Amino acid sequence: MSAEIICVGTELLLGNILNSNSQFLAIELAKLGIPHYYQTVVGDNLQRLKHAIDIATKRAEILIFTGGLGPTPDDLTCEAIADFFAVPLVEDAEIIEDITQKLQARGRPVTPNNRKQALIPQGATILPNPIGTAPGIIWQPRPGLTILTFPGVPGELQRMWKETAVPYLQSQGWGKEVIYSRMLKFWGIGESALAQKVSAYFDLPNPTVAPYASKGEVKLRISAKAASETEAQKLIAPIEQQIKEIAGLDYYGADDDTLASVVGHSLRQAKQTLSVAESCTGGGLGQMLTEVSGSSDYFWGGIISYHNSVKHTLLGVDPKDLARFGAVSATVAKQMALGVRSRLDTSWGLSITGIAGPTGGTETKPVGLVYIGLAEPDGNVESFEYHFGTRQSRSLIRHLSACTALDLLRRKLLRGS
Amino acid sequence: MSAEIICVGTELLLGNILNSNSQFLAIELAKLGIPHYYQTVVGDNLQRLKHAIDIATKRAEILIFTGGLGPTPDDLTCEAIADFFAVPLVEDAEIIEDITQKLQARGRPVTPNNRKQALIPQGATILPNPIGTAPGIIWQPRPGLTILTFPGVPGELQRMWKETAVPYLQSQGWGKEVIYSRMLKFWGIGESALAQKVSAYFDLPNPTVAPYASKGEVKLRISAKAASETEAQKLIAPIEQQIKEIAGLDYYGADDDTLASVVGHSLRQAKQTLSVAESCTGGGLGQMLTEVSGSSDYFWGGIISYHNSVKHTLLGVDPKDLARFGAVSATVAKQMALGVRSRLDTSWGLSITGIAGPTGGTETKPVGLVYIGLAEPDGNVESFEYHFGTRQSRSLIRHLSACTALDLLRRKLLRGS
Repeated sequence: MSAEIICVGTELLLGNILNSNSQFLAIELAKLGIPHYYQTVVGDNLQRLKHAIDIATKRAEILIFTGGLGPTPDDLTCEAIADFFAVPLVEDAEIIEDITQKLQARGRPVTPNNRKQALIPQGATILPNPIGTAPGIIWQPRPGLTILTFPGVPGELQRMWKETAVPYLQSQGWGKEVIYSRMLKFWGIGESALAQKVSAYFDLPNPTVAPYASKGEVKLRISAKAASETEAQKLIAPIEQQIKEIAGLDYYGADDDTLASVVGHSLRQAKQTLSVAESCTGGGLGQMLTEVSGSSDYFWGGIISYHNSVKHTLLGVDPKDLARFGAVSATVAKQMALGVRSRLDTSWGLSITGIAGPTGGTETKPVGLVYIGLAEPDGNVESFEYHFGTRQSRSLIRHLSACTALDLLRRKLLRGS
Repeated sequence: MSAEIICVGTELLLGNILNSNSQFLAIELAKLGIPHYYQTVVGDNLQRLKHAIDIATKRAEILIFTGGLGPTPDDLTCEAIADFFAVPLVEDAEIIEDITQKLQARGRPVTPNNRKQALIPQGATILPNPIGTAPGIIWQPRPGLTILTFPGVPGELQRMWKETAVPYLQSQGWGKEVIYSRMLKFWGIGESALAQKVSAYFDLPNPTVAPYASKGEVKLRISAKAASETEAQKLIAPIEQQIKEIAGLDYYGADDDTLASVVGHSLRQAKQTLSVAESCTGGGLGQMLTEVSGSSDYFWGGIISYHNSVKHTLLGVDPKDLARFGAVSATVAKQMALGVRSRLDTSWGLSITGIAGPTGGTETKPVGLVYIGLAEPDGNVESFEYHFGTRQSRSLIRHLSACTALDLLRRKLLRGS
């Protein structure tokens, strides 16, 4: 038993809109424990829509349509469904009244186009739309096959889903088994290296473990199927614990945790404060830190020393060292970290200087070369050299720089220096 | 002749990620004039993947796969393709060497998992991946059918598409009739207000004009279909000109322009410099400005004054005013702007102080209240008050604050103050 999501709309095929409805429905189906194996996007075309219905009826028992319910002639979802199952479309008096009331409330006339929205396949039940004019339907055209339709407007779909579709599906026995997931997050290890360390877990039937990677971060999703969220959590907990032990310090958090939030948590626990000196990231490190609500408890601020003169005047970097080693150097990174720590009077000072590209790289200092400086509470300072790759985008190099700086501090804080 | 997009990944079926790749490919196919009528999403499952291939080969002549090329055992795209067409997977020495070099450059070992990424269907050509380890393939398993595969990482897919897939498809005769688009961008006007002003253009057949809105920005896409990009541009130019005249200063740029890049352009032309003082945005304004390569010509840096003490010590805000008016006030915004302009010795000083929430709001100073200060080259200073809404997310309030600050400066620079 599985569902299939069929999103209808030429605007999706033209790339005019991002298909957020399929993501919403995917998450919701998972919550109800209803598996779905395919999603289909098809344009506003009667024959192709019927072709998609034909395929879906052969591999799924619940078909969920979004889009194609509007008042214009290119909205064809109901027509295609009725046509495919060879039943007539009938005008529903209740819908006509509802549409008339809604349009009158907005001072708009009822047009013939609107009457089209009142046509539903004979035998179907209305899936009410409390905010828009287009209602959906719930219909069993034959035993063992259920059809639900929703408009393409995300706000309308979401409300109709929660208010009517979920109770309906639960009444059909769904939602008794839930799928619950934990997303474990890692920094400082590649996807394949982590995958090798935890490969034994990829074959588990329940919970399942699957890896993801993007922009320097690796994630492992642990998903359990159980009768309740509590039971699913019980299945996940021991696997999560084992994976954390295997990963050691490369594991940094789960679900909504970010590098910035876990660094903040450690700083708050240690009653320590942080300031940042940013050159190539230009404020991005500060932005990550302050994305966490309440970060003013431990993050005092920073200096964006984009121009070299600012490195000297506001951070106290020695102009001779700037000239001798260059702005992108271990020496300057250290002086930036020490400078910002002292000027903002914080426990820690964290600095970034590097070449984000695409221009500005040289033979000895290529694009992607980044130095991170870390001034510690005891006044010691260290610098770390990274090569994020000469062909990476400016945006990715800056992102990796800021994340790596946070990760360095995270590890220091966890080791209890 | 048409294409079909097949996105592979259980993470899409679970709703863990939004399917932005299908939107990117949809836009790109339209540009090349290649129709596509279906998109399919399928999980990391060999049988279902082969089933999706079976269906797609019956209704499309170009199959474009994204995802499932990673190093882990659940990455099955190549295996499914080879299996479906009954050819063996062979290890490609060139790929092995490329992966080895890339991993060595990052100081990471080559694992057996990585070797898996070097397996391609016999007879397929490599579609090089200049930034990641997973290459794609271009393959004609039989006459009249072309397969292209891409990794799921959007940055890698996009680069591989532009550098290799587009030239390849053009060499096959595609892209002779092009769809060319210009995206006009607006700030400081709502979607419906702009739509009303330019509604007459929404009915044009060629070029077409369509509105989009997200996170405070409104866009109008003008798309023309023609035999060449030059001819399409000729169709677009007069419409673009008329819309710009109607929109006036609310229009800020097109295509790759950002508020930060157009501000940068104006500053460079005026030979003026800028510094920023950020409280609630915590570095986000500096990050936007420095996302533009070459911004060090006019952006000198800034001070992230997250903690009130930093507002005083580094920006010279009067502690009495901080106590009397509060950190989120017109007075403090002005002093921050003046302070950063004077300490960094720049033409302009731009400051932001506000309540990003979700906590910290009061009856008189609700979440979403933001003051922006602008210190001008002549030493004058102004402040501006905004209410971005008490129920908006922290992230959106910070984004709107930084964009609005840039927009204020943009308008000042254009008016030639």
